[in-house]
This record gives sequence, structure tokens and C-alpha cells, in this order.
Amino acid sequence: MQDTARLHGIWSASLTPLRSDLSIDVPTLIEHSRWHLARGCHGIALFGTTGEGTSFSVGERKAALEAVIAAGVPAASVMAGSGCAALTDTIELTAHAVNQGCAGVLILPPFFFKGLGEEGLYRCFSEIVERVGDARLRIYLYNIPQLSAVKFEVKLIERLLKAYPTAIAGLKDSSGDWNSTKQYLDAFPGWGLFTGWDPHLREVVRLGGAGTISGMPNINAAGLRALYDNRLKPAGAELEATATTLIKTVDAAPPTAGLRAVLAHYTGRDSWLLRRPPLEQNPDQENAIVAAVRATGFKLPPPLKPGE
Amino acid sequence: MQDTARLHGIWSASLTPLRSDLSIDVPTLIEHSRWHLARGCHGIALFGTTGEGTSFSVGERKAALEAVIAAGVPAASVMAGSGCAALTDTIELTAHAVNQGCAGVLILPPFFFKGLGEEGLYRCFSEIVERVGDARLRIYLYNIPQLSAVKFEVKLIERLLKAYPTAIAGLKDSSGDWNSTKQYLDAFPGWGLFTGWDPHLREVVRLGGAGTISGMPNINAAGLRALYDNRLKPAGAELEATATTLIKTVDAAPPTAGLRAVLAHYTGRDSWLLRRPPLEQNPDQENAIVAAVRATGFKLPPPLKPGE
Repeated sequence: MQDTARLHGIWSASLTPLRSDLSIDVPTLIEHSRWHLARGCHGIALFGTTGEGTSFSVGERKAALEAVIAAGVPAASVMAGSGCAALTDTIELTAHAVNQGCAGVLILPPFFFKGLGEEGLYRCFSEIVERVGDARLRIYLYNIPQLSAVKFEVKLIERLLKAYPTAIAGLKDSSGDWNSTKQYLDAFPGWGLFTGWDPHLREVVRLGGAGTISGMPNINAAGLRALYDNRLKPAGAELEATATTLIKTVDAAPPTAGLRAVLAHYTGRDSWLLRRPPLEQNPDQENAIVAAVRATGFKLPPPLKPGE
Repeated sequence: MQDTARLHGIWSASLTPLRSDLSIDVPTLIEHSRWHLARGCHGIALFGTTGEGTSFSVGERKAALEAVIAAGVPAASVMAGSGCAALTDTIELTAHAVNQGCAGVLILPPFFFKGLGEEGLYRCFSEIVERVGDARLRIYLYNIPQLSAVKFEVKLIERLLKAYPTAIAGLKDSSGDWNSTKQYLDAFPGWGLFTGWDPHLREVVRLGGAGTISGMPNINAAGLRALYDNRLKPAGAELEATATTLIKTVDAAPPTAGLRAVLAHYTGRDSWLLRRPPLEQNPDQENAIVAAVRATGFKLPPPLKPGE
């Protein structure tokens, strides 16, 4: 709407690899970030829900983001999850991401108190914009009411866009509800609307939305890029059907579990299976998902070649 | 159970006073802490739900706690809320509170992901105990499922108590549900069970529980102390009825709003009205609560005298 070079396409909500002491495995995160971009993603979103962002401290998130960018991953291809329960933490992470040159920030609403009113939510985001105070700021509102207990209402977004037409750059709708996504597309034509549910990608882009930010590129970067590039061609329908089968197969497990299991299986790296508490491993369930994914004939895009 | 000098009595879940820039008004927090103890509280709990703990960063919480203790408030009368969404933050705040000499820590379970399993929750608390690694650690589990989406099941507590019989010191039950509180009292006789609902205080203590940690001492420290001291006497029933009327009058507003309005009215300090987003002010509702509290004949315990 405001920005002709707006973000678009396939963005991966990256998993966060861990060491056995539950700290972030930064070298593997760097490699996985580069792999995403080399295998078709337009960008990566670090520390979203798939990346268990809320399970890591402000310091851990800043250090990992800095390391990824310092390693040569273009900041213009990186979105940082920066929404915390504490407004001061959100402001610190958001300012840090802007200073790192990130393409945008994906901001969860505060998620502890329930039954929040429009005024309190408006003030959260106005404080973020005012206190960060940087013209480069691009906020993507993170709508995931099943976890945050906040649905971003159209009226709130209208108020925010009126006050901050450049900074409020878009929204990621992870509700999984097409009526919700459609409502945003109708209310804000040409805005930076991303879906979190790949099967909605073609229709979202057809109606003027930006693309998808989802967990599936962690294993299916190439397949989703092909879907995006062929979205208007006859091949689009078949690619969408394949992507839909894969997501439904992996989503039989709780958040991140299926993706971690599949990535561990195909890369041979057990470290992908680790997750930070409170999430837990469930080997039986994960093995069943791997078997189901193998049965579809899925192939993981190849690892990075030397020098790639 | 393990500790004959276990914490007990009336603990205030202190409000957190703010400056107009939304930072913590530390001098007022110190004065309010001292006032609580001088007017009858056995202790104060900083950064619980009433204190909007999750709305403040780790750094803000550590600095305020240090300032309160440095000002002479006995650490043995202070409990620190230290539960965050990120395990590393919880560990940092918990270790800090132990090093400050606090009587205990009140730990929220992780509150972003939903549908958590017993194993993930067990691992959260075992990591906290192991990584803090201090024999002085006393954890009070914070059961407030209506906000955290986690109910502490008896089976989980049994596992934790078996592994860490000293560190897992008790539980604050803010469910408001007597059946829940009774279940804990039955399962763990003589344990450090606090209710968050003052009208249950007498019965909780009669059945071997420890007392109450609630928001009402922010305005009614003296009344609740009288209730505790007279719990076995005929006056107890009348004091309980008075406390019940007051809590029901104040609880007509969302968390903290009623208490803030009443304290602002009786102290003449408008700064008590401020709150950090996402919570918001609602003057009409707050004025109605103040009028209703005044109509009960309630009197705020007097302010600290010079030198008190």
C-alpha cells in the first residue's frame, strides 16, 4: 500500500536448533538460514512460533540474530519475531532488529493477560512505534489467537494504520481460518498480508496479499517456492495439492514436533529433535509422522554444497 | 512438611506503581512495601499477577527487587514472582531472588504454548532447580489456569516433590475454585499451600495450609491480618464476611484496576492509576468501584509515620 517494494513470497518460520544443553545451536541456525534462501525462500522469520521464540530470552534472541546476519545472511531477507509479554522487551528486540537492518519484525501481542481491550492493545503498538522511533521500522502484526488469546480486530488495525501508515506494514494470519484472512484482505487491499497456512497461499496472493510465513519451508522450501512461482499456471493446482498433503501429514503432531522429526530424519542430525521445555519430545508420534511423510515420496531439498 | 519455619499468614501480591513514562516508581514501591509490613502483612510478593509481573523485563524486575531490599525491607519477608515464558529468564530471575535472600519465588508455568504435557512441565521445574543449584531455593508453584492455561496436576507435583522435597515449597492457588484448593490440601498435608482468594483463608489454614497471597492487602492489610489472627475466634466469621464484601466490591473491575483506583482515591496519589499496556484505565468503572467501596465504610490503614 505504502511500499511498492513490499515483502512478498515464501518466508520460512525457521526452527531453532538446540545444543544438548538447550542453548541455541547458532552455527546450525546460520546454515539452516542459508539453506532456506538457497533452496527457494524469499526470506526467513526467526523466533516465530515454530522457532519457539517466546522460549528464549531477549539476550539469546539478539545474539542469534546478530550471528546469522554477521555470517552473511542478508538482513533484507530476515524478519525477527520480537513480541514478548513485557512491552519493554518487545521494544528492545524491535529496536535491535531495526538496527540490524532486518526487513521487518513479527510482533505477537502481549499474551499473559486475557480479555484485553482495544485501547490497551493500541497503546502497546503506539509505544513500540514511538519508542523505537525509526523510519525503517516495518511491523507485521502476528495474529495467532489460539495461542496469544488476541485477535487483531479490523478497527484496531485501522487506528494503527491511520497513525502509523508506514510502520504498520502488514499482518501474519496464523488463525488458520479463511474467513479471518479474507476479512483482512477485504479491509486492507494491497497490504502486507501473509497467511500462515500454505494451502491459502494462491488465493491470498490472487486477492492482493503478500505470501506465506509458515513452518513448512523448514523442510519444503523448494516445493513452496515452485507453488508460489506457478500460482497462476495450471501446475499451481497440483503443487498446492502436494503442499497440502504434506502439511496435513506433518501437522499431526504439536507445534514444531513434526517438522523437527522430519528434518532430523532426512538430514541424519538428531540435534533437530531437541526442544526447549515446556515443549517435549514424543518419539512414537514423531516416528509415525516421519513414516507418513516418507510414504508420500517426499524428498528434502539437498544440503548446501561447498561454497554455495 | 520439610520446613518447620515455613512461610505463613497474609502475603500481599503488591501492585507495581508507575511513573508517567511507564517505568517503575521505585521509591513508591519501597514505601508501599514497608507500609504493607507495618500494617500487618507477614510478607509481600512482588511481580505477581496483581503486580503485572509479566509486563516487566528481567532487568526491571531485578533492579526493583534489589532496591526494595537495599532500602531495608527484610528479604525474609519478600517473595519474588519469577515465572516467564522463557525458561532462561525464569532461571535468571529465580537465581537472582535466591541471591538476594528472598523467602521464596512464585513461579508461573510457561504461558505461551498451550496443551502442555506433564513431561515438559516437569522438565521446566527440574531445569530451574538444577540450574539455580542453591539449597536456599523455595519455589511456590503459581496455579492460575485462567491466565497461564496450565493447571498443576497432583501427579506432576508428586513427581517434583519426590525429586526436590525442599525446593518445591508450596503452591499459590489462584484458581478461585475451592475444589482445586481442597485437592491440594488433601494430597499434600502440611505443605505450603496459599490461597489467592481471601474468603478461603480460614478454611485453608484450618486444613493445614499456609495462608493467603492476594491483592487485597494492597488496601486491606490490617483487616486481613486481623482475620488471620482471629481465625479460630468468634470474631473470625465477621472479619471474614467483611473481607469477602470488600473483595467482591473491588473485583468488579479487571485485574488490578479496582485496587489501583481505591488506593489512588484513599492516598490522593493519581500515580497509582497508571498501568502499563496492555492493561488500560477505565475511569467510569474505577470511579464506580471507589464509590461502592466508600459506601461499605472502608478505611485505608494509615500511611507510615515518620521513622516508622
